[in-house]
Amino acid sequence: MKAIIISVGDELLNGQTVDTNAAWIAVELNNMGVEVALSYTCSDQYQAIIDALEYATSRADIVLMTGGLGPTKDDITKKSIADFVGDSMVFNEKTEQIIKTLSEHYKFKYTQEHHDQCYMPSSAKLLKNSMGTAPGMWIERENFTILSMPGVPYEMKAIMKNGALAKINTKNAGSHIEHFIIQTAGIGETNLSEMIQDLVDDFPSNLSMAYLPGTASVKLRITGRGIDKDALIAEVNQQGQKISDRVKEYRFAHGEVSLSKALGELCISKNIKIATAESCTGGHVAHLITSVAGASAYFEGAIISYSNAIKENLLHVSHQTLQDHGAVSEATVVEMVQGTLTALNVDVAVAISGIAGPSGGTSEKPVGTVWIAVGTKDNIKTKKLQLSKNRMINIQYSTTVALNELRRFIAKYI
Amino acid sequence: MKAIIISVGDELLNGQTVDTNAAWIAVELNNMGVEVALSYTCSDQYQAIIDALEYATSRADIVLMTGGLGPTKDDITKKSIADFVGDSMVFNEKTEQIIKTLSEHYKFKYTQEHHDQCYMPSSAKLLKNSMGTAPGMWIERENFTILSMPGVPYEMKAIMKNGALAKINTKNAGSHIEHFIIQTAGIGETNLSEMIQDLVDDFPSNLSMAYLPGTASVKLRITGRGIDKDALIAEVNQQGQKISDRVKEYRFAHGEVSLSKALGELCISKNIKIATAESCTGGHVAHLITSVAGASAYFEGAIISYSNAIKENLLHVSHQTLQDHGAVSEATVVEMVQGTLTALNVDVAVAISGIAGPSGGTSEKPVGTVWIAVGTKDNIKTKKLQLSKNRMINIQYSTTVALNELRRFIAKYI
Repeated sequence: MKAIIISVGDELLNGQTVDTNAAWIAVELNNMGVEVALSYTCSDQYQAIIDALEYATSRADIVLMTGGLGPTKDDITKKSIADFVGDSMVFNEKTEQIIKTLSEHYKFKYTQEHHDQCYMPSSAKLLKNSMGTAPGMWIERENFTILSMPGVPYEMKAIMKNGALAKINTKNAGSHIEHFIIQTAGIGETNLSEMIQDLVDDFPSNLSMAYLPGTASVKLRITGRGIDKDALIAEVNQQGQKISDRVKEYRFAHGEVSLSKALGELCISKNIKIATAESCTGGHVAHLITSVAGASAYFEGAIISYSNAIKENLLHVSHQTLQDHGAVSEATVVEMVQGTLTALNVDVAVAISGIAGPSGGTSEKPVGTVWIAVGTKDNIKTKKLQLSKNRMINIQYSTTVALNELRRFIAKYI
Repeated sequence: MKAIIISVGDELLNGQTVDTNAAWIAVELNNMGVEVALSYTCSDQYQAIIDALEYATSRADIVLMTGGLGPTKDDITKKSIADFVGDSMVFNEKTEQIIKTLSEHYKFKYTQEHHDQCYMPSSAKLLKNSMGTAPGMWIERENFTILSMPGVPYEMKAIMKNGALAKINTKNAGSHIEHFIIQTAGIGETNLSEMIQDLVDDFPSNLSMAYLPGTASVKLRITGRGIDKDALIAEVNQQGQKISDRVKEYRFAHGEVSLSKALGELCISKNIKIATAESCTGGHVAHLITSVAGASAYFEGAIISYSNAIKENLLHVSHQTLQDHGAVSEATVVEMVQGTLTALNVDVAVAISGIAGPSGGTSEKPVGTVWIAVGTKDNIKTKKLQLSKNRMINIQYSTTVALNELRRFIAKYI
């Protein structure tokens, strides 16, 4: 089955917004064996949308549209679609009911615009949007299907996961795609590739390997295509496991599992409590740990000691240490770990202190210098990073390394 | 002048790479008054590129292509372009010389693939690529111009800045685009639209309004098009200022300024220190505050009190309060603010406690219940939110509201 993605919105064409929806949709379609033939971004004007639909429906089995729906602008998109497929616009009472319930719950006013929003192309099946007022619309014709969704990423994802993906999967018959995913951290793409190149060279022709680098992490994805589903699964798993064994020192999970989720599972299995002390990462490590549902079972909290006063008063880093070695030093992060273990009464703590930039560096400690310590009362390990001049990259990179060092320490010593 | 952007590459269509080139190019073209009519992503196959060129050259004055060039894959793209415009491929000695010089400098081997890379469509003017081996190609015909560049973002940007942008500017006569941007938080898209609809209805026909919703925030963008640049700027500013005055209660900035940046500027202008105490947001508020360069001038730190023990021991919330009212309560967030003001010795603090979900709710306090308090020693304001069942949305939404309440409090009372 062939798909074309249409993203609607002037904000995408003047560069104010980078379209991340198309890539997310492409990954999901790819996972179920649907080929994305092309992706197309047009303005939210009547004729532009009609043109895009004409182009796409003559070249694909399914056209996925995002954007151009929502209380202030959905008239044009819905009208364009309705005219294109020859539908009239009809009032949908169920949508009205849903918006009225939302308006009571979230205490916003039900306005004329909300009322107008309830008109839908007459042949559209509506798909539930659990995150907003504009439902998805599924319109089938003999030669094509149109799925239209709002452009707000979490609304689009909610509609896809709550029904649209299953409907697409049902339409797509025959060929199968299987993936085997290995998550790694602490090693670069080139070195990983060197480590496993001989295994990848031996892959059967229906298997391929993708290196998907993140910040301080690389996801390896083995993809197989075939007709016999069971044989394909067996083959992908066998080859995937070989790669996985080879990289096990750097592997933190199989499948779509985040580093903080893997860390959380480890903490639960070892029955320990953890905490963080953060300077340059400013709470980002704690944020990622607490993004995992159920983190309160093992995460006690954090002290974000952005100033030296907080390092001294709350983390009990000695004044002498700060004076002699500076806030960005091995001695300081070690005392930060010790202070966190006591103040937050946890089994293992991680501490990060660095110069995120863009200013604040010296010749001895340039921007991008970061110290990390992780440990228990009796055993503390440290690591120094020398990163870039870019503040956001430095914060994200240090955060990933801190999470990974915490995970490695717990796996090895606890 | 009308432009169409074509991004070439399978990696863009299976979601492995998010295309950021198109947005960057769109901003640059927009700034010089060139309208981007649509953006189009196709696979790196001969026929797909030919199809894309046919579609784009019949609809735009200039077609900007990125991707599909470089040592391992540029044959197909260059051959497609040459065939499309009726060029032969000719060997370019200057390119060979450049690659040979680079190979000596960077000590890589000059291979057969590099040699093959020196063949170019016969009518292409080559544009210097200071960051890589594949030059840009500029091909003019009577009705259209094609500019083809490599997909590596820094190579594409180097070619654009070192000559291509100037060439486009020369081709583009006359028309200008101007934007006026207003950032708001604490009000939804629909209610904002009601508030300003009469002003928008009165816009002259060359002005348009876009509502760009984020999480708990909405960006308003007024766009004007015109020939007389000075008159256009005056008109856009006049209409923009009217809208801005109308929504000033919810406005936190003009232009591309984040909420945490606006908060930071306010703290600097009032010469105060701030801190956060976070339970359900888990450090996300501190993370956004410290994402702003120079945050150490006003941000002291944070206590992430995920457990009740931390709330008692570090924030000095009384055991009685936690027992009587629970951790998610007005009384608790008020004491969290008081504890933070003392423990971190700051002028203003914000505290957040809630049930992020997906589990942990009760009938009295369902998932999505969040209390926020912000204040000084003598003056504390509170706010209750009733959010969704989705953990990440609840965290992001509460974070934005907390930042905005902190900003509003400082603006009003300090």
